[in-house]
Amino acid sequence: MYRTHTNGQLRAEHIGQEVTLAGWVQKSRDKGFIVWVDLRDRYGITQLVFDEERTPKEMMDKASKLGREFVIQVTGEVIERVSKNPKMETGDIEILVKKVTVLNESLTPPFTIEDNTDGGEDLRMKYRYLDIRRNPVRENLIFRHKVSMAVRNYLSEKGFVDVETPYLIKSTPEGARDFVVPSRMNEGQFYALPQSPQTFKQLLMVGGLDKYFQIVKCFRDEDLRADRQPEFTQIDCEMAFIDQEDILNMFEGLTRHLLKEINGVEIGEFPRMQYDDAMKLYGNDKPDIRFDMKFGELNDVAQHKDFGVFNSAELVVGIAVPGGNKYTRKEIDHLIKWVKRPQVGALGMVYSRCNDDGSFKSSVDKFYDQDDLAKWAEVTGAKAGDLICILSGETNKVRAQMSALRMHLAEELGLRKADEFAPLWVIDFPLLELDEETGHYHAMHHPFTSPKPGQLEMLDAKPGEVKANAYDLVLNGNEIGGGSIRIHDKETQAIMLKHLGFTEKEARAQFGFLMDAFEYGAPPHGGLAFGLDRLVAILGGQETIRDFIAFPKNNSGRDVMIDAPAILDQEQLTELNLKIDLQEK
Amino acid sequence: MYRTHTNGQLRAEHIGQEVTLAGWVQKSRDKGFIVWVDLRDRYGITQLVFDEERTPKEMMDKASKLGREFVIQVTGEVIERVSKNPKMETGDIEILVKKVTVLNESLTPPFTIEDNTDGGEDLRMKYRYLDIRRNPVRENLIFRHKVSMAVRNYLSEKGFVDVETPYLIKSTPEGARDFVVPSRMNEGQFYALPQSPQTFKQLLMVGGLDKYFQIVKCFRDEDLRADRQPEFTQIDCEMAFIDQEDILNMFEGLTRHLLKEINGVEIGEFPRMQYDDAMKLYGNDKPDIRFDMKFGELNDVAQHKDFGVFNSAELVVGIAVPGGNKYTRKEIDHLIKWVKRPQVGALGMVYSRCNDDGSFKSSVDKFYDQDDLAKWAEVTGAKAGDLICILSGETNKVRAQMSALRMHLAEELGLRKADEFAPLWVIDFPLLELDEETGHYHAMHHPFTSPKPGQLEMLDAKPGEVKANAYDLVLNGNEIGGGSIRIHDKETQAIMLKHLGFTEKEARAQFGFLMDAFEYGAPPHGGLAFGLDRLVAILGGQETIRDFIAFPKNNSGRDVMIDAPAILDQEQLTELNLKIDLQEK
Repeated sequence: MYRTHTNGQLRAEHIGQEVTLAGWVQKSRDKGFIVWVDLRDRYGITQLVFDEERTPKEMMDKASKLGREFVIQVTGEVIERVSKNPKMETGDIEILVKKVTVLNESLTPPFTIEDNTDGGEDLRMKYRYLDIRRNPVRENLIFRHKVSMAVRNYLSEKGFVDVETPYLIKSTPEGARDFVVPSRMNEGQFYALPQSPQTFKQLLMVGGLDKYFQIVKCFRDEDLRADRQPEFTQIDCEMAFIDQEDILNMFEGLTRHLLKEINGVEIGEFPRMQYDDAMKLYGNDKPDIRFDMKFGELNDVAQHKDFGVFNSAELVVGIAVPGGNKYTRKEIDHLIKWVKRPQVGALGMVYSRCNDDGSFKSSVDKFYDQDDLAKWAEVTGAKAGDLICILSGETNKVRAQMSALRMHLAEELGLRKADEFAPLWVIDFPLLELDEETGHYHAMHHPFTSPKPGQLEMLDAKPGEVKANAYDLVLNGNEIGGGSIRIHDKETQAIMLKHLGFTEKEARAQFGFLMDAFEYGAPPHGGLAFGLDRLVAILGGQETIRDFIAFPKNNSGRDVMIDAPAILDQEQLTELNLKIDLQEK
Repeated sequence: MYRTHTNGQLRAEHIGQEVTLAGWVQKSRDKGFIVWVDLRDRYGITQLVFDEERTPKEMMDKASKLGREFVIQVTGEVIERVSKNPKMETGDIEILVKKVTVLNESLTPPFTIEDNTDGGEDLRMKYRYLDIRRNPVRENLIFRHKVSMAVRNYLSEKGFVDVETPYLIKSTPEGARDFVVPSRMNEGQFYALPQSPQTFKQLLMVGGLDKYFQIVKCFRDEDLRADRQPEFTQIDCEMAFIDQEDILNMFEGLTRHLLKEINGVEIGEFPRMQYDDAMKLYGNDKPDIRFDMKFGELNDVAQHKDFGVFNSAELVVGIAVPGGNKYTRKEIDHLIKWVKRPQVGALGMVYSRCNDDGSFKSSVDKFYDQDDLAKWAEVTGAKAGDLICILSGETNKVRAQMSALRMHLAEELGLRKADEFAPLWVIDFPLLELDEETGHYHAMHHPFTSPKPGQLEMLDAKPGEVKANAYDLVLNGNEIGGGSIRIHDKETQAIMLKHLGFTEKEARAQFGFLMDAFEYGAPPHGGLAFGLDRLVAILGGQETIRDFIAFPKNNSGRDVMIDAPAILDQEQLTELNLKIDLQEK
């Protein structure tokens, strides 16, 4: 047995006992006549003491040679500390060491194993096993475990069955790009890794399983944006004999349970917002509603004056920045520069200061009088002391720009509080989305999402206006989950695929198995998938998902620790009957 | 809302209530004036009734047209049944239907949705969503869910942290063949899918996580034997600061918990058996100890007579078949034929009948007298009424043959009872195993397994005799788990890899990250992995793992339902920079 206790366990009540501990040397202080060593493991830190009065010379020497991150085992007596440390759980005691064994030595770590390390991200990724020894990273992993367990137990109690769906499936030419996996047993043929278990969970519903869930890895062979992983984890759920209301209630319940269980926060009924309203009020389908700054559309009160910029704009929209009148001219110039950055793309920004005396001072006083500006304040809800920021232009663009500005300002003003939680359902998403590049419509959610009752007929005439039984769960400005009520009959599915540009033959080849299944008594069904990586990060009060993944990949999709992916040797390629063809590109 | 109750819920106490139910038409009996419909969902069956006295004509017509597996929704009154069915949980009541809606029609299913279906395996795999509607398959999936949840909650309570390890890793030229995954972002480079998270869980131990578990998919691109899947699921576990005893106790605890929780069976301390003894007594490293028939080695009492077959044999071994003297001459001839089949490979079988009067009658009476045969009975533990079966030849071969015969006889005699559980630890496995084909030694468990203390030095001189800190958990003749105490220092790992035929450069390229990790304070650690598929099947009283997998692949590694793997189109291959090279083979 390597230990009788962990390093987080011993208290005053253990004084006088002989114990054996094991762990890592966090640090040591060597005063010559006395050596203190902080011994660390997952559970805490215990102070060891060696002193020349009570410790044999030989052991004193050994103690003074214990380097950082050495793995040691000690046996000794629990004694009362002379100077107690109330900040440490084991701060009342220390161990007078009688025997010490070095279980393994350590080179000097490439960065400090401290809460605030001196290691940069690349180094920490390369030595991830050392990074995990740091409290914040380890606690994040344990936090993720707790969330997963809470999810599983909640859903299991609600009658959901955890079913493993296959990882080696068939490639789909729809959506993101698949990772493909050549099969040796079936020469020249390939599996694909699932982007989600979507069709399988639908088949489970056709199979009468009624309620399914799974915490499951999914894969996308896409160029990675920052903080997006080629493999990611979903809480994948599906229910049969339900309508949208049932789904929203069920997963609102799960989310509320997590917020309470994990964060100790009680949240009442989640607000619901139509997609169209979210776009109109926040310029965004995943609004952060921890703070206000709703959009006020100013066309009626700002157009038809002599200000050409507004007059020619499709949309003039303003937000009231709370307390924003305190911004100096220089700070406002900075904001204007910010919205003009290519990442945001506005051509400029108009503003109006709401003075404490009820008067206004705008950047366009030449065109607008106090009455006009008063109307702007009314529409945007601005109060004395606020600043109204106004952007104008083409509706979709200006909404995106204003949404970015709103988030930027909230960040600056400290309104995005990590320990405050504001969930929101966004509902009634459009069924289709126009790809501006190709001019084609594609499924906004996925091709299995059902249109709202009676709207199927509009698909030909007004494809962009058809609404779907689709919903997103938004938390603090992040989409943490999304889903839909599915199509469950072959005819509707065929119509949908046709509108998405599949020929009948392609639809058959790709989704024949699903459409066949719909002919054998498919029940109405729908579901939702949470992005576990993001959910965990947000519940954990952070937005960097990588910090909650044990072995993440970098922005090039590489695991720098194990150096993957790598070049295969010729034997492996030959066995697979594959050839890397560098000429083709 | 599609239903107020499920089809397994209604009892006499609900009589008089109006309810709405939904589900599948299991069957209907149409007597003209009365129609009964059995409505099925995951939770049970409820009988619906339509009769001409109480049901409008139009609805009677509708009812008589409801086909098998139609999905319907009905509203009606719970009424008392005239003839109750005590075999059904809802057998006291039926629903007098007032409204019926067909939610979806169904073609006639290709096989009956009954416990004993008329569908063959291929058909059931192709229409797996219909197969899952059958009670036994659905119950198996729910059973698997229960086992998984019990495992997770038990380990979580014991302080294990569920950590997700990556699926896109680096290929290892060791062990079984990897599935490889070309990366678009890293041209010409490949990930591999993990055969197990072995090195990652070791890194988590180096990272101080102390106790790790995960229920995780693993992958092997091997030719499939019957009932072996290219993707399979492990309960993967690792602990730090432990010795073998700690591991055995921990996972014996988990297994005992599962047997109690899932099967209601209380099992005491699991017996432990050395690998050498298992081979000697059962000819097998995963003996089924639900029944006896231990091997008796007869060399001392059967050699040095005139029977050349035995005299020239390395091993003469017998088993006592309980009550086997009842076998007729014809049945024994059948057994002899059985052991001579090429799959078993014995050249013949000697037997000795143990008569009720204490006398013996053997097939080699010419060479052996009653005293000799009495000794055989003593060594094999045979009693009056038993049959002693004897095989002879080269030790390893004859043990394998006798083990096969023992299992065959136990099966025939009904000794392999599905509801009886006999777990067993097999310990002290050899470190290395000789590959008879190549003459090379390879790691019996894996290259990270530590040798027994002090035996590292024997690696050069007697590689085959070095024992490992390796152990298997056997249940009813199946290996359900296996593991080892790992090497945790760089030097030992280097020596081990050298003995396995890796050059220093190869070892570095392949396992450099792990050996580096060992230099930064790796703690002693070890673990175990259960094969979840097999564990679930055995706990479920069956041995066919495919029955417990929602979407299994056939013996060619194909999912016939979705037709995967499939040929990719040229565009996908070009994007991947891959070419299928059919000339090379």
